[in-house]
Amino acid sequence: LKTDKCTNRNNSSDILYFSHSLVLFCSRHPTSCCSVAEIMSVLFFHTMKYRPDDPKNPNNDRFVLSKGHAAPALYSMWTETGFLKESDLVSMCQVDSALEGHPTPKQQFVDVATGSLGQGLGVACGMAYSGKYFDKASYRVYCLLGDGEMSEGSVWEAMAFASYYQLDNLVAILDINRLGQSDPAPLQHHMEKYQRRCEAFGWHAIIVDGHSIEELCKALTQPRHQPTAIIAKTIKGKGIPVAEDKMGWHAKVLPKDMAEGVIRDLQSRILNSNKRMYPATPTEDAPPVSLRNARMPSAPSYKPGEKVSTRKAYGMALAKLGRYNERVVAMDVDTKNLTYSEIFKNEHPNRFVECYSAEQNMVWILHILHTKVRNFCLLSGLNRARAQNDNLCGELDWIFSEILFITPNKFPLKIFCICLQGICYIRTSRPESSIIYNSNEDFHVGQAKVVCQSKDDQVTVVGAGVTLHEALAAAEQLKKDIMYECICMCIYIIFNIIFSSVVSGCTSTGGLGEAVSSALVNESGFVLQRLAVPHVPRSGKMSDLLKIYGIDRESIVQAVRKMVSSSANAK
Amino acid sequence: LKTDKCTNRNNSSDILYFSHSLVLFCSRHPTSCCSVAEIMSVLFFHTMKYRPDDPKNPNNDRFVLSKGHAAPALYSMWTETGFLKESDLVSMCQVDSALEGHPTPKQQFVDVATGSLGQGLGVACGMAYSGKYFDKASYRVYCLLGDGEMSEGSVWEAMAFASYYQLDNLVAILDINRLGQSDPAPLQHHMEKYQRRCEAFGWHAIIVDGHSIEELCKALTQPRHQPTAIIAKTIKGKGIPVAEDKMGWHAKVLPKDMAEGVIRDLQSRILNSNKRMYPATPTEDAPPVSLRNARMPSAPSYKPGEKVSTRKAYGMALAKLGRYNERVVAMDVDTKNLTYSEIFKNEHPNRFVECYSAEQNMVWILHILHTKVRNFCLLSGLNRARAQNDNLCGELDWIFSEILFITPNKFPLKIFCICLQGICYIRTSRPESSIIYNSNEDFHVGQAKVVCQSKDDQVTVVGAGVTLHEALAAAEQLKKDIMYECICMCIYIIFNIIFSSVVSGCTSTGGLGEAVSSALVNESGFVLQRLAVPHVPRSGKMSDLLKIYGIDRESIVQAVRKMVSSSANAK
Repeated sequence: LKTDKCTNRNNSSDILYFSHSLVLFCSRHPTSCCSVAEIMSVLFFHTMKYRPDDPKNPNNDRFVLSKGHAAPALYSMWTETGFLKESDLVSMCQVDSALEGHPTPKQQFVDVATGSLGQGLGVACGMAYSGKYFDKASYRVYCLLGDGEMSEGSVWEAMAFASYYQLDNLVAILDINRLGQSDPAPLQHHMEKYQRRCEAFGWHAIIVDGHSIEELCKALTQPRHQPTAIIAKTIKGKGIPVAEDKMGWHAKVLPKDMAEGVIRDLQSRILNSNKRMYPATPTEDAPPVSLRNARMPSAPSYKPGEKVSTRKAYGMALAKLGRYNERVVAMDVDTKNLTYSEIFKNEHPNRFVECYSAEQNMVWILHILHTKVRNFCLLSGLNRARAQNDNLCGELDWIFSEILFITPNKFPLKIFCICLQGICYIRTSRPESSIIYNSNEDFHVGQAKVVCQSKDDQVTVVGAGVTLHEALAAAEQLKKDIMYECICMCIYIIFNIIFSSVVSGCTSTGGLGEAVSSALVNESGFVLQRLAVPHVPRSGKMSDLLKIYGIDRESIVQAVRKMVSSSANAK
Repeated sequence: LKTDKCTNRNNSSDILYFSHSLVLFCSRHPTSCCSVAEIMSVLFFHTMKYRPDDPKNPNNDRFVLSKGHAAPALYSMWTETGFLKESDLVSMCQVDSALEGHPTPKQQFVDVATGSLGQGLGVACGMAYSGKYFDKASYRVYCLLGDGEMSEGSVWEAMAFASYYQLDNLVAILDINRLGQSDPAPLQHHMEKYQRRCEAFGWHAIIVDGHSIEELCKALTQPRHQPTAIIAKTIKGKGIPVAEDKMGWHAKVLPKDMAEGVIRDLQSRILNSNKRMYPATPTEDAPPVSLRNARMPSAPSYKPGEKVSTRKAYGMALAKLGRYNERVVAMDVDTKNLTYSEIFKNEHPNRFVECYSAEQNMVWILHILHTKVRNFCLLSGLNRARAQNDNLCGELDWIFSEILFITPNKFPLKIFCICLQGICYIRTSRPESSIIYNSNEDFHVGQAKVVCQSKDDQVTVVGAGVTLHEALAAAEQLKKDIMYECICMCIYIIFNIIFSSVVSGCTSTGGLGEAVSSALVNESGFVLQRLAVPHVPRSGKMSDLLKIYGIDRESIVQAVRKMVSSSANAK
């Protein structure tokens, strides 16, 4: 596909054929693929530099299909490169095919799943940040967005991030095809409004005809000193006469005869059906990285009884870890003086990414890891990210910080005495608490520890974070009366995130009590009682709140006494 | 407070005294209150029209303190109006005080809780939309934002919404005090960059000196034909010499002697300490509304055995409900042709709010309800809102729609045969399923129903949505063998949301299985087995997926058979 040979749709050749022929195989979104056919063709066979036989090569330009519902267009490109077979395409969307309805990282040429609107540009920002500041390499990052998702605030968080960090290696292509799922997008074909918004957010913004291969090639080869937005005016359903620019065709399968007609039309335009196209070869300047040995050679030197908040312990461990592997990267959302990630920042300023109050974007930036497995990322301030969606009413509980780790599955990160692999979540606390473990203690994700017990124990108290320390104080008190001795267990809150659920500390639904119930439901010979915050809490001092909501040491003592006497009476 | 008497900080009078004196009582954020002292004074005693003795009056101008951490400044205003007593202020933040660290709706003059960044402007948009399109009344809406939260994408979702719907009754005041929590905000004092962004999003934007009462009064009285942003350049910590425009003072309590010095300085500037100030009286043109009798007079006319998807049943019920109460309002995020809220839109176009793909904003718009209790709101498309934060990996399951209801606690909404009160959540399904209830069946939030049983039942199968129908099919199959008869229970997924947790249909953590375990943990004499999707699922046809993940009818039959034989063997 040479620029000079492809100045209009009529001879834009094989790629369009592939992209369009997918209407036959794909049950969803043919019209959304049609609007990006020329854009994808130009990106894959004119603009981007990559090794088609090695999609994971770290020197490759990166591509993120933020409008993930156009996945068939992406698959057709990788078929044209020879990486996928035509037979792969034919079986697309079947239940045993790796080619699902949206891109997923199971596909080797996909770095991160997309399809939920507004997430791709944040991921692309993370890749571009990594390329410019960590790898200092030539690869560029391209992200294709739909106009529907331009309504997502997360896109504007990413726009602000890209200009703040001057990501001149990042290009966003906006497919302005005018039509959304159930209505036209709010800005319709007002190209200049999109341009004004992009410029106000610090981007260089160029309006092009998205079906003109010439205009696309020209815009994509402009030199750039800031992030660039190519604002492409396109027609949804382009090439399918009855569907062009019409509502009611989003996510609709074409009738078989209509699809065949479109394909015949495309076939008739192919000048040379045997011609193969090749992308340009990338510059080989991404430095080698090693993710092995990401561990602290010595355990932290806390002594039992010493007091430190788990937040601070996180910050100190993070900074220390950073000394031993230069691909450990930390992020925060302007809370680094609360989460203590500033300790890391002070020691390793070039590996700290301040994301400001844009929590959704930070979570997507975290995926810089996925760009060819080159970083360990640790993110603090997640409680704010969750609060953005979850906190429909009431005031936040600022006692906790939430921290997200993301490490490649092949290369676990050893922090403290625990190996973290994949996406993990840890909750830390603000108040100082006593060190209760020796520094050589081993921890495992999703497991618990017994931190105090005796042979006459009658009750097990399970706590985590602040409530563990309340439980320990309760145990001390109960020791004075031989009747009520109890055992304390700590659930250290570290999860591998598989689904979205995380245990919320002290609430009755979705909390620790429910997780413990669930583990115990098939056991018998015991009674379980749960202490939990019963309704939306108010704000206040921790000690007051623990008392008001019945999860302090005194409430635990009372509950234990009551359980033991009921059990004695029953006997 | 007359404009002509208050042209600079030196004679801006009593209000500043109150606002500043709070540094003594409030343990948090004195410097964030100082930057908004003049803005708040002008809003409350020059610009806004309201009844100070009746904060809930529907004719009042609305005020949303998006930067909720400046709550003491808000409380000082309501003390100056006479609504709060000085003694209320003195006890602020104590554990029995209604004046918490952030505004909450427990306070009569607060419509919705704020403090988590970036949520206030969406709420204000909802209020302004309601004022312009539903009430057609004179009241205006004012929202005060901090510069830190301008990094939140949700703010830009709201900016786009306001200009799209031409909310000329909405004014946002941006307190650009330059400093965030741990760093300067990314745009620092570049006022023109804020202006450019606001203008690109369709707002009229005016830059003012936020400590000049004259400039503020002038900007706030300009006639307007579009939403207006007052971009106020301010100094964080203004009036506290050591803290002015300095990092390191965010959320710091002032030492007692420093606070006393500041207060002495302020007191010395008060010209007449006995002078009371009164706001202007509002125009009384908000129409009376009645939220009583929000119910469908007749049950839906489905017949047992008939097939309909619960999505569609939602849309039809919604449209019907709209006929009987004109304050029923529906919203969607460009998915109305999937969630069937378009049936409501077609019938009641003036009460349907299209929010486009801006899910966070939609959730805040929903709070238009809270503006003086004037609407019932029903929102569909919530699965996209949740996906924005939750879906870290893998593909979404598009089988479900999630719907949020919000009704004033005093006025429940009777939809179908269920009363909904407060914030409720319902999950509907895409596939058609058979009607299994009579139309006069009663439902209760958070309860279950037995939908099939016989006297020889040995196993209880609990399902919800699609898995209930799989369980019913399994029961039919098991009936043929007397050994394995089972009882089916339906959990109809309707919750009152108290915390953020919602049961995720088929996952093992946080799912239905965990909720049931939790309810059964203290019972004995049974064995519980959970069928759940064990890892991030792929996409595909529902029937294929149910089978692959072991939650289809055949898997249920197998599980029941196995349980019955183990139990027989044990005996």
